[in-house]
Amino acid sequence: MNAKIEPLADRINQLDTSSTQHFPASRKVYIAGSRTDIKVPMREISLTPTVTESGVEENPPLRIYDTSGCYSDQEAVIDLQKGLPPVREVWIEERGDTRLLEQTSSHYGRARQQDAITAHLRFGSVRPPRKALPNCNVTQLHYARRGVVTPEMEFIAIRENMARAQVQQTSQPRTQHPGQAFGACIPTEITPEFVRGEVALGRAIIPANINHPEIEPMIIGRNFRVKVNANIGNSAVTSSIEEEVEKLTWSALWGADTVMDLSTGKNIHETREWIIRNSMVPIGTVPIYQALEKVEGVAEELTWDIYRDTLIEQAEQGVDYFTIHAGVLLRYVPLTASRVTGIVSRGGSIMAKWCLAHHQENFLYSHFEEICEIMKAYDVSFSLGDGLRPGCVADANDAAQFGELETLGELTHLAWKHDVQTMIEGPGHVPMHMIKENMEKQLAVCSEAPFYTLGPLTTDIAPGYDHITSGIGAAMIGWYGCAMLCYVTPKEHLGLPNKQDVKDGLMAYRIAAHAADLAKGHPGAQLRDNALSKARFEFRWEDQFNLGLDPVVARAYHDETLPKQSGKLAHFCSMCGPKFCSMKISQEVRDYAKANTRGDVSQAVQEGMEQMTSEYHQRGRKLYHKV
Amino acid sequence: MNAKIEPLADRINQLDTSSTQHFPASRKVYIAGSRTDIKVPMREISLTPTVTESGVEENPPLRIYDTSGCYSDQEAVIDLQKGLPPVREVWIEERGDTRLLEQTSSHYGRARQQDAITAHLRFGSVRPPRKALPNCNVTQLHYARRGVVTPEMEFIAIRENMARAQVQQTSQPRTQHPGQAFGACIPTEITPEFVRGEVALGRAIIPANINHPEIEPMIIGRNFRVKVNANIGNSAVTSSIEEEVEKLTWSALWGADTVMDLSTGKNIHETREWIIRNSMVPIGTVPIYQALEKVEGVAEELTWDIYRDTLIEQAEQGVDYFTIHAGVLLRYVPLTASRVTGIVSRGGSIMAKWCLAHHQENFLYSHFEEICEIMKAYDVSFSLGDGLRPGCVADANDAAQFGELETLGELTHLAWKHDVQTMIEGPGHVPMHMIKENMEKQLAVCSEAPFYTLGPLTTDIAPGYDHITSGIGAAMIGWYGCAMLCYVTPKEHLGLPNKQDVKDGLMAYRIAAHAADLAKGHPGAQLRDNALSKARFEFRWEDQFNLGLDPVVARAYHDETLPKQSGKLAHFCSMCGPKFCSMKISQEVRDYAKANTRGDVSQAVQEGMEQMTSEYHQRGRKLYHKV
Repeated sequence: MNAKIEPLADRINQLDTSSTQHFPASRKVYIAGSRTDIKVPMREISLTPTVTESGVEENPPLRIYDTSGCYSDQEAVIDLQKGLPPVREVWIEERGDTRLLEQTSSHYGRARQQDAITAHLRFGSVRPPRKALPNCNVTQLHYARRGVVTPEMEFIAIRENMARAQVQQTSQPRTQHPGQAFGACIPTEITPEFVRGEVALGRAIIPANINHPEIEPMIIGRNFRVKVNANIGNSAVTSSIEEEVEKLTWSALWGADTVMDLSTGKNIHETREWIIRNSMVPIGTVPIYQALEKVEGVAEELTWDIYRDTLIEQAEQGVDYFTIHAGVLLRYVPLTASRVTGIVSRGGSIMAKWCLAHHQENFLYSHFEEICEIMKAYDVSFSLGDGLRPGCVADANDAAQFGELETLGELTHLAWKHDVQTMIEGPGHVPMHMIKENMEKQLAVCSEAPFYTLGPLTTDIAPGYDHITSGIGAAMIGWYGCAMLCYVTPKEHLGLPNKQDVKDGLMAYRIAAHAADLAKGHPGAQLRDNALSKARFEFRWEDQFNLGLDPVVARAYHDETLPKQSGKLAHFCSMCGPKFCSMKISQEVRDYAKANTRGDVSQAVQEGMEQMTSEYHQRGRKLYHKV
Repeated sequence: MNAKIEPLADRINQLDTSSTQHFPASRKVYIAGSRTDIKVPMREISLTPTVTESGVEENPPLRIYDTSGCYSDQEAVIDLQKGLPPVREVWIEERGDTRLLEQTSSHYGRARQQDAITAHLRFGSVRPPRKALPNCNVTQLHYARRGVVTPEMEFIAIRENMARAQVQQTSQPRTQHPGQAFGACIPTEITPEFVRGEVALGRAIIPANINHPEIEPMIIGRNFRVKVNANIGNSAVTSSIEEEVEKLTWSALWGADTVMDLSTGKNIHETREWIIRNSMVPIGTVPIYQALEKVEGVAEELTWDIYRDTLIEQAEQGVDYFTIHAGVLLRYVPLTASRVTGIVSRGGSIMAKWCLAHHQENFLYSHFEEICEIMKAYDVSFSLGDGLRPGCVADANDAAQFGELETLGELTHLAWKHDVQTMIEGPGHVPMHMIKENMEKQLAVCSEAPFYTLGPLTTDIAPGYDHITSGIGAAMIGWYGCAMLCYVTPKEHLGLPNKQDVKDGLMAYRIAAHAADLAKGHPGAQLRDNALSKARFEFRWEDQFNLGLDPVVARAYHDETLPKQSGKLAHFCSMCGPKFCSMKISQEVRDYAKANTRGDVSQAVQEGMEQMTSEYHQRGRKLYHKV
């Protein structure tokens, strides 16, 4: 150990990744699967009883889907320098279709591992990389198509099905409105076989690189819970390794289902290693960013060899999905010249520049099957990038965007020929009335491969508030069938997000995703709404806070006007004060209805009707008719 | 003057209502109408020129709809103790159908004006109240139906049509996507006659009490710009007169088209006078709140006489619209007993309690035509309250809610019989897939009277973030045809909003309303988006900030990572850094396309096509076909 190592290690050690203070009354629980090493994490929120004059009614604890990993497990020992335990390793080994390599196959990766200058930034104990045996295909799609239900699939079924199980347990299920799912088909019970079937059809993907055994498996598909991605990563202007590790755990804490490392600054290789080794959520990247760094930022100098080596480097580190802008074809590029904002995707603009400079077809397109060969040797999933997405509402749904989408559809089938899991990236900036066309066209053109959209932003006029302009579009496209929503933070278009921005972006997107789940009628999605609403109605303030997305903020807002503990027990709040509380009066109405009908509500209705009928006749049947 | 007067006066004088620092590069302009006293205010944002290698291109200033009144006019002299100038007084007098009263007709109003204890809280110079001459009807609906185009209507036409006028002026109009307006019919030019016609049909209202001559007229209807209401008002627990006056000017600054004073605390009469005299936006109230205060908060003791006197008191002060919960019928009340959250409307729960206690029909319903007589003597508009709106997604679109809506439809026709302007209030908490049904049912049942909704909130799980849960629903229902959106602040369900909460709520709702205008295809709505997007693409940072909803915040976010002035001139931002900027590369693509096609984009497309065709043949027409 030399002296240089200590600063990063120190800084890493000082990170506060524990998350229990953010969720009072919550504890981590694990649901067992068919084998002992399938332990599906959930967060259980305990509730206080309802106390009425007629007695005490217990409120059962609520279990919710949990992305925060062992960082929210009070009993877990966290050591960021060692990384997370490789829970999937046994499952991967058991399949017997992989081997360990002595060292990484990437030239660049080997050089970095031997580089003395960056030694102090290196993650400590790198595992040897794993790769498919010759002629083997190790993708979840490959297994699914052969009828194999993997432990990953069972894990996911339990995870997705959890809410449904609670519906069955709850003694008094509340109204569940049938959703409108636009051709999606969500079963009332999600079984491992259902998961397998959706993956086999290409309608869902399980991003799970064999070199990322640390992940808690999750699924992206429109017949499952809508997922949210958070972007992190440094830039040439700002950020450091420990900041990125912190953003990772912070993102997962606030509900990120996957995290993309979009680093374009210094030490991309080392930053990524730290992130992956400490991540229980799948990690995505845009490999062209690092490839461009390798050619000093000169797009024209990019080559297939450099790019190919970058794919292998990252696949052997454990990246779970790659954004690849293979649909930016030469003939589409001039279609963007008359746009208001041209090309706004970084990857798209890099490839466009390369195409024009060489006057050749995009090398990602011309080498696409070679890329598939790499993907299937590690089970890296495609996230086919929308390099020509619109950057403003004026450019939405134009010829460049939809031309590229047609090509992504073509590439989806090519990827599926190789059993490589594939999702499709989508826009961008789209006014509300043009969102549905995006979803419908994507489903048709890409044969129902999962859609993964950035927003879309529904207006361009609110820099500083684009988590809201895009949260509107994200909720809508999630309802229409989008499988994963890439968050947008308030800093979008303005700067690199800090921790608060990451959290604000995730809050907006967890709202959007949940609103979409409700609208689609995802089984059990409404349980949390109902539990919170019941707590609200019964003035169980602490329960109302704890069931919310952000208990600490909710409580702080309440405390601003009623800071004392008595305020948490009060049957009113500062909005109306004690005399005017509608919830309080409403309780009295309920009590009244009960008292006057011996609990029979329909009788009260009947009585009301009779009363009105009688009045109606008394008034000579003339008053209050329509004019 | 006694010593007690000074404190409130001092506090009022200390209020900072000037707003120019929030909108750099903006100035107030006034568009003249057909007569010299029609001066329609707008905010004009000046822009910097675009500088390219080929020369300097001027960017014309952008004029936007402006609700902030003379508070944003640097040349206006503001004296909150005197109130705003009564700009409409001449128009009202000219019509010759009103007279001035010697004093208010309200018993309570007279008592308050002679009350020594509250003298120090009283607004200084109260004008004598104005009332219709006997047998006269002074509503804008009455004039409209007789074919009269009032100055108010002309003012509104200029105000609403402004953006369209700019479209015609702009030399290079950008793409305007045709909206999808769900049966709304927005003309390309809004004329005074169109305004009159919409009012005559009952499809739009102009809230404009003859005792509120200070207002800048505005219109609420689905064939116009979507409007936003902000709620202010004290409660028994918190707030003061000067805080409420400050919230009024603050709300208008951030885009509130109307403001509701929902005070339920002390000195409601005096607080309201201060608000109205200083408000250029229409003011709405819920008179039952004050009536209840008069009976010490005991709902059972409310009487028609007390309520009637309250209506007259408020009408003669100048309230422009009254929320009246006349649809909460006795027979509907038991329908709420099995709900998760019962009745959540304060007004609704008060009336429900009264109905049950007396086992009589709602006195607002049984005296409805008497209320109409009062409304038409002052031109107070109805906002028929949805007292049985759902308080959680589980209760959405239920029998109680839709039963009440049917009654509101009946009452709309009764109001129209008296030529009283009427809009309908709507929910509340509604999951996304059930929103459209609300709008469609309201239009059908209420014969296209304008809909005015609170949110709706699309999920219940995010206390502290309900400006976002509801912003989603608000944008959608605005698109579907809702005429005005009542904002929800982050404090909803938790406490009384402070200034920051009011602003946060308005930002979310201005976004929702504008997104709806874009989706409906409101003429010229997209101009601001396009101007901002062009500025963004051209790295005109200051213009990008200044064209946004909140320039100061946008600038501050940018400064967090690139604080120096050079960052405002840089052709990149901190998100990507100088090498990776997609906008920069995109500019190069455009330059390339121009250089290689002598400016002819279609030729570049053609060349790209030929290139691809040639490659396609070279590859034997086999590669990259669908599998």
